[in-house]
Amino acid sequence: MQDGLLYSPIILGPIALIVALALYFRIKSLPDGNETMNRIGTYVREGSMAFLTREYKVLFVYSLVVMALLAYALGVIAAGSFLLGAFLSLLAGFFGMKAATFANVRTAQAARMGSKPNALLTALDGGAVMGLSVAGLGLLGLGVIYLVFRGTENVGTVLHAFAVGASSIALFARIGGGIYTKAADVGADIAGKVIENIPEDDPRNPGVIADNVGDNVGDVAGMGADIYESMVAAIVSAMAIALTVDETGLAKLASGAVTAAPVDLRWWAVSLPLLLSTLGLLISLAVIFIARLMKNGDPASVLRTALLIPPVILTIASAILMPMFGLSQGVTIALAAGAFGGGIIGLVTEYYTASTPIRLIAEACLTGAGTGVIRGLAVGMESIVIPMAVVAAAAGIANHYLDLYGIAIAAVGMLAGTAVVMTVDAYGPIADNAGGISEMAGLGKEVRDITDELDAVGNTTAAIGKGFAIGSAILTVLALFSAYNMEINHVRQLAGKGALILQLTDANVLIGIIIGSILPFIVGASTMTAVGRAAGAIVVEIGRQFREIPGLLQGKAEPEPGRIVDIATVAALKEMIFPGTVAIFSPILVGFILGPAALAGTLAGSLAVGATLALFMANAGGAWDNGKKYIEKGKLPGHKKGSDAHKAAVVGDTVGDPFKDTSGPGVSILIKVMGVVSLLIAPLIARFWL
Amino acid sequence: MQDGLLYSPIILGPIALIVALALYFRIKSLPDGNETMNRIGTYVREGSMAFLTREYKVLFVYSLVVMALLAYALGVIAAGSFLLGAFLSLLAGFFGMKAATFANVRTAQAARMGSKPNALLTALDGGAVMGLSVAGLGLLGLGVIYLVFRGTENVGTVLHAFAVGASSIALFARIGGGIYTKAADVGADIAGKVIENIPEDDPRNPGVIADNVGDNVGDVAGMGADIYESMVAAIVSAMAIALTVDETGLAKLASGAVTAAPVDLRWWAVSLPLLLSTLGLLISLAVIFIARLMKNGDPASVLRTALLIPPVILTIASAILMPMFGLSQGVTIALAAGAFGGGIIGLVTEYYTASTPIRLIAEACLTGAGTGVIRGLAVGMESIVIPMAVVAAAAGIANHYLDLYGIAIAAVGMLAGTAVVMTVDAYGPIADNAGGISEMAGLGKEVRDITDELDAVGNTTAAIGKGFAIGSAILTVLALFSAYNMEINHVRQLAGKGALILQLTDANVLIGIIIGSILPFIVGASTMTAVGRAAGAIVVEIGRQFREIPGLLQGKAEPEPGRIVDIATVAALKEMIFPGTVAIFSPILVGFILGPAALAGTLAGSLAVGATLALFMANAGGAWDNGKKYIEKGKLPGHKKGSDAHKAAVVGDTVGDPFKDTSGPGVSILIKVMGVVSLLIAPLIARFWL
Repeated sequence: MQDGLLYSPIILGPIALIVALALYFRIKSLPDGNETMNRIGTYVREGSMAFLTREYKVLFVYSLVVMALLAYALGVIAAGSFLLGAFLSLLAGFFGMKAATFANVRTAQAARMGSKPNALLTALDGGAVMGLSVAGLGLLGLGVIYLVFRGTENVGTVLHAFAVGASSIALFARIGGGIYTKAADVGADIAGKVIENIPEDDPRNPGVIADNVGDNVGDVAGMGADIYESMVAAIVSAMAIALTVDETGLAKLASGAVTAAPVDLRWWAVSLPLLLSTLGLLISLAVIFIARLMKNGDPASVLRTALLIPPVILTIASAILMPMFGLSQGVTIALAAGAFGGGIIGLVTEYYTASTPIRLIAEACLTGAGTGVIRGLAVGMESIVIPMAVVAAAAGIANHYLDLYGIAIAAVGMLAGTAVVMTVDAYGPIADNAGGISEMAGLGKEVRDITDELDAVGNTTAAIGKGFAIGSAILTVLALFSAYNMEINHVRQLAGKGALILQLTDANVLIGIIIGSILPFIVGASTMTAVGRAAGAIVVEIGRQFREIPGLLQGKAEPEPGRIVDIATVAALKEMIFPGTVAIFSPILVGFILGPAALAGTLAGSLAVGATLALFMANAGGAWDNGKKYIEKGKLPGHKKGSDAHKAAVVGDTVGDPFKDTSGPGVSILIKVMGVVSLLIAPLIARFWL
Repeated sequence: MQDGLLYSPIILGPIALIVALALYFRIKSLPDGNETMNRIGTYVREGSMAFLTREYKVLFVYSLVVMALLAYALGVIAAGSFLLGAFLSLLAGFFGMKAATFANVRTAQAARMGSKPNALLTALDGGAVMGLSVAGLGLLGLGVIYLVFRGTENVGTVLHAFAVGASSIALFARIGGGIYTKAADVGADIAGKVIENIPEDDPRNPGVIADNVGDNVGDVAGMGADIYESMVAAIVSAMAIALTVDETGLAKLASGAVTAAPVDLRWWAVSLPLLLSTLGLLISLAVIFIARLMKNGDPASVLRTALLIPPVILTIASAILMPMFGLSQGVTIALAAGAFGGGIIGLVTEYYTASTPIRLIAEACLTGAGTGVIRGLAVGMESIVIPMAVVAAAAGIANHYLDLYGIAIAAVGMLAGTAVVMTVDAYGPIADNAGGISEMAGLGKEVRDITDELDAVGNTTAAIGKGFAIGSAILTVLALFSAYNMEINHVRQLAGKGALILQLTDANVLIGIIIGSILPFIVGASTMTAVGRAAGAIVVEIGRQFREIPGLLQGKAEPEPGRIVDIATVAALKEMIFPGTVAIFSPILVGFILGPAALAGTLAGSLAVGATLALFMANAGGAWDNGKKYIEKGKLPGHKKGSDAHKAAVVGDTVGDPFKDTSGPGVSILIKVMGVVSLLIAPLIARFWL
C-alpha cells in the first residue's frame, strides 16, 4: 500500500497539466478586442516568444556542455536527469508565458466590456496556467525519476542532477529575464519622460512594447523558472538528507507511541517531501477553483486568502495523517513552522511595501530625491529584520523536533502552495500588461480604472508571494548545506575516513566565509550595471527613432518596436552570461582548489550575505515603487503626479527597478544554485580531497 | 634584557604625546586671521566642544553602568581597566579635536597669506596631534596594564576589558558623530540649495556652522575613537590568542634554526603585538616629520607616500629582528601580508572612488538621478570584491605560517602606521573646514583655490586610510573570533570538559549565522533613518530662521547657528542609543540565551554581512561624492555645475553622505564591538553553559 503512494505525484501532476491546458484553451477562445488591441497584443506575444526562443537556444548550448561534463564526471544517467530537470523548466516557462501573452489582451478586452469579474478571472486563469504547469511538471519529473531510481545507489546523484538542471535554467531565465525587463522599463521610462516628455505607456514610444514584453519574460517566464526551482530544490534537499541521515536521526521520525507498529522510517523520510508536496498541489488545485468562483468578490482579499490557505490546510492534513502513518507529529510542527513562517514573512513584506513605510518614503520625497532614496534604502534594510528572525525561529523549531531534516521539511511546508503562489505571481504582470495595452490602444479612463485596480492588487499580493519564495529559499539553502555535508561524509565514511571537521574557527572555513560573502555583491553589481548599460542603448535607439521617423512625435507615424525588442534581447542574453557563470563555477572552483571545508564556508558566507541582500533589494524596490504610486494616487496633500515630490519619487522607483526585479532575484537564486551545485559535486570533491 | 623591551611602549607613548603637545602649541601660536574668520572659527570650535562635552556626559553615565556590571561579573580590576580604555579614548578625542578646531581657521589664514606649503603644514600638524595622541595613549595604556598584570591569571580579562572600553566609546562616538555630521550636512545642503536656493557654505545659511562642527565631531573625534579602537583591538586579539594558544601552536613561532638557543615563546607571542606596534609608532613619528619637511612638495604624493611607508619599513625591520630574537620569519611574512594587503585595499579603494568608476557615475547622471544612483550602487558593490579577496588571501598566508595567531599579526601589520593613518584622516576635515571658513568669511577665489586643492587631496588619501582601517577590522574580527573560541575552550578545559564543537552544520551555529546577518542591517537602517529625521528637523529650523529673521536672506542680519548646533547635538545623542545598544547587548543576549555556539555563528554572520556592507556603503558614498566633484570640475563636456547632470549627481552625493560617514562606519565598528564584547564575556558564557 505504502509504495502505491509514490504513484500519487505522477497521477496528480498530469491532472494539473490537463487542467492547465483546459484553462489555456478557455483563455484563447475569449474575444481579443479591437484591431489595435489585437495588433499590440500580437507585438507583445511575438516579442516575448522571440526572446524565449533565442534564450532557449543559448540555454540549449549551455545544457549540452554541462551534460557532456556531467556524463563524464557522474555518468550518463545523471546527465539525462539534469536534462530532464532543465527541459521541464523550459517547458513550463514556454507554456505559461504563451498563456500569459494571450490572457493580457483578453483581460483588457473584458475590462473594455466593463466587467471587472471577467477581467479578474481572465488574468487569474492566465496565471493559473503557469502555476499548475510549474507544480505539475516539477512533481511529475521528480516523481518519475524517484520511482525509477529508488533503491539504486544512483538515486541521490540522479535527484541532485535534476535539481541542478532546474536551478541552471532558473538562474539564466531569472537573470536574463530580469535584465531584459528592467532595461526595457528603465529605458522606455527615461526616454519617454525625460527626453521626449511623453506619458507612460504612450503608443508613440517605441520602447513601450519592449517594456510589456519584459513583464512577460521577466515576471512570468523568469519567475516561473525560479519558483519551479524552489520547489524542486526544497524537495530534493529533504530527500537528500533523508537518504544519508544516520539511524539516530531517522529515529526522531517515529511516532513514539508504544503501540505503534514498526514502520520503514527511511522509506518515509525520503518519500514524505514528495508526498507532502503532492498533497499541497491537490489543495492548491482546489483553492484555485474556489478563487475562480469568488471572482465577484474584492480581488485583494480573494488573492490574499488564496495564498494563505494552502499551508494551513496542509498542516491540518499532516496532523491527521502522521499518526495514521505511525510518524511523529514533529513533521507537522516542522511543516507548520515553515507554513506560518512563510505567511508572517509575506505579511511583513506587505507592510514594508504598502503601509506606513511607503508614506514615509513619499514624505521624504518632499525634500528631494536624495532623501527619498535614503528613506527607501532604510526601509529596505529594516524590512529584512523580522523575515530573517522568522526564518531563524522556524529553523530552530523544525530542528528541535527533527534535526536538519526538519528544516528541509519546513521549506517544503512553506512551498506547499507553489501552484497558488505562482498563479498569483503571474497574475500580476498579466494585469500590468492589460493596463499597458489599454493605454496604448486608447481605451479610455473607465477601462484603465479596472486594469489599474487589478494591477495594484497584483503588486500587493506579489509581495506575499515573494515572502514565501525567499523564506523557503533560505530554509532550502540551510537544508542543502546540511545535505552537502552529509554527502561529503558519506563518501569519506565509505573510504574509511573520519567525518569532515567543519570547525567554524578553521582558517579554511573562515576564508570560505569571506569568499562567499563576495559572490552576492558580484552578481548584484554586474546585474545592476547590465541594466544600466542596456537601458542606455535603448534610450539611444528611442531617441534615434524620434529624430529619424518623420511624424512619430505627432502620432502620425508608427514606431519600430521590433528594434527595441531586439536590442533588449541581445543585451539580456549577453549580460546574463557573466553572473550566471560566477554562480555555477564558483562552488566548483572553491571546492577543488581550496577543499570541501572552504566550500562549506563559502556556502555559509553567501547565504548570510545573499539572503539579506536579496530581501533588502526586493523590499526597497517594492517600497519605492509604491511610494511613487502613493503620490500618484494623490495621498500626499498638495503634491500630485508631476509635482517635484513626484519627480523625486520617480527617481526612487527607477533605482528600485533593477533592485527588485533583476539584482534581488538574481542574488536570491545565486545562493540556491550554489547549494545544489555543491550538493551535486560533493562526492567528486570528497574523493578528490581524500 | 627581554623584559626591558616591555618598557618601550610606556616610554615611546609619552614621547609621542609630548610631540603632539608641542605641535598643539605651535598651531595655537599661529595667526588666526581677521575678525570674521576668528568669529566663525570660534563658533565652530565652541559648537564642537559643546557637542563633545554633552556626548561625554552621556558616555560617562553609560560607563558607570557598565563598570558596575563589570565589577559585579568580572571583578573590580576588569572594571577599572574598562574605564581606563574608555577614558584614554575620550582624552585622545578631546585633545585631537581641540587641535583640529584651532588648525582649521589657521589653515585658512595661511591660505589667505597665499602660502600653500604653510596651509598644508598647519592642517597636517592639526591632524598629527590627533594621530600621535591616538597611538601614544593607546600604547601607553596597553603597555601599563600589561606590565602591571602580566603573569597574573587576570591578565586576559584585564586586556579584554580595556578593549571593550575602547570599543564602546568608539561605537558611540562614531555613530553619534556620524549622525551629527551628516544630519547637519544634508540638512544645511537641502535647506540652502533646495529651499532657499543659496550656494554651499553661504554665511547666511544658519546650518553651515553646524555642518563644519559636524566635520570635527564626526570625521575627527569619531574617526579618532575608531582608529584608537582598531589598534587596541588588533593588539589585544593577538595577545589573547597568544595567552591561550597551545604548545603546538606556539612552536610555529620558533625560528627553526638548529643552532638557535631556546627562547620563551609564550613571552614573545604575547609581547610581539605590543612591541611591533611600538616600533610602528616610532616609524610613524619619523614619517610625520619627514612629511612636514616635504611641505613644498605635491600634497597628494606627500600624503600618499606617508601612508604607504610605515608598513613597508616595519616589515623590513621585522625581517632583521626576528632572527635576532630567535623567532620565525613567519612573523615577518604575516606582518607583510597585512601591510601590503592594506596598501592594495587602499589603492583599490582609491581607484573606485577617484578613477574610471566616477566618470561612469558622472556619465550615468546624463540620463537622470535614477541612473546615477544605480551606477553608484553598482560601483559600491563591485568595489568590495578585491578588498575582500585580499583580506582572504592575507588571512590565508598568515594562517599558513602561524595559524590564527598569524591572522592577528597581519592585522597588527596593517595598522602599523596608525599614527600616520589618523594624521591623514584628521587632516581631511581640517582642510575641508578651512575651505568652509574661507567661503563664509568671503576670502575670495585665490584663497579658496588653495583650500580646495588641500581638501581634494584629503578626500583621496582618506580613501587609502579607510582601506587600512576596514581591512584591519576584518582581520581583527577574525582574530577576535578565534580568541573567543580559545577562551571558551580554556574555561571548559579547566572544568574538565571537552572542547566546544563549532560544527558549521550545527543548527545553533546556523541560526546564529542568520541572527548575525541581521544586525548590520539594523544598525544600517537605524542610522540612515536617524540622519534623515535629524536632517529634516534642521531643514525646518533653517526655514523658520529665514522666515522669521528679517533681512537674513538679504545678508543684512545674522543667522542663529547655535539653534542648529543644538538640534543636531540633541538628535545625534538621542539617536545613537539604539544602534549602540544593539551592538553591545546582542552578543550578550545570544550568548546567554542560545549558547556559545550560537554566539560564534552570530559573530561569523555579522562579520560576513557587516564587512561587505560597510565597504559597499563607504565606497559607494565616496564614489558619488567624487562623481559630483567630477562634474563640478567641468570634466563632463557641456555639463557644468548647476546643469541637470550636476543636479542628478547631487542626489547621489546626498544618498552617499549617510552611507559613507554614518552607516558604513557604524556597521564596521559594530562587528568589532561584537567581537571584543564576546571575548570579554566568553568565560562567563562558558561557565553558564557548562
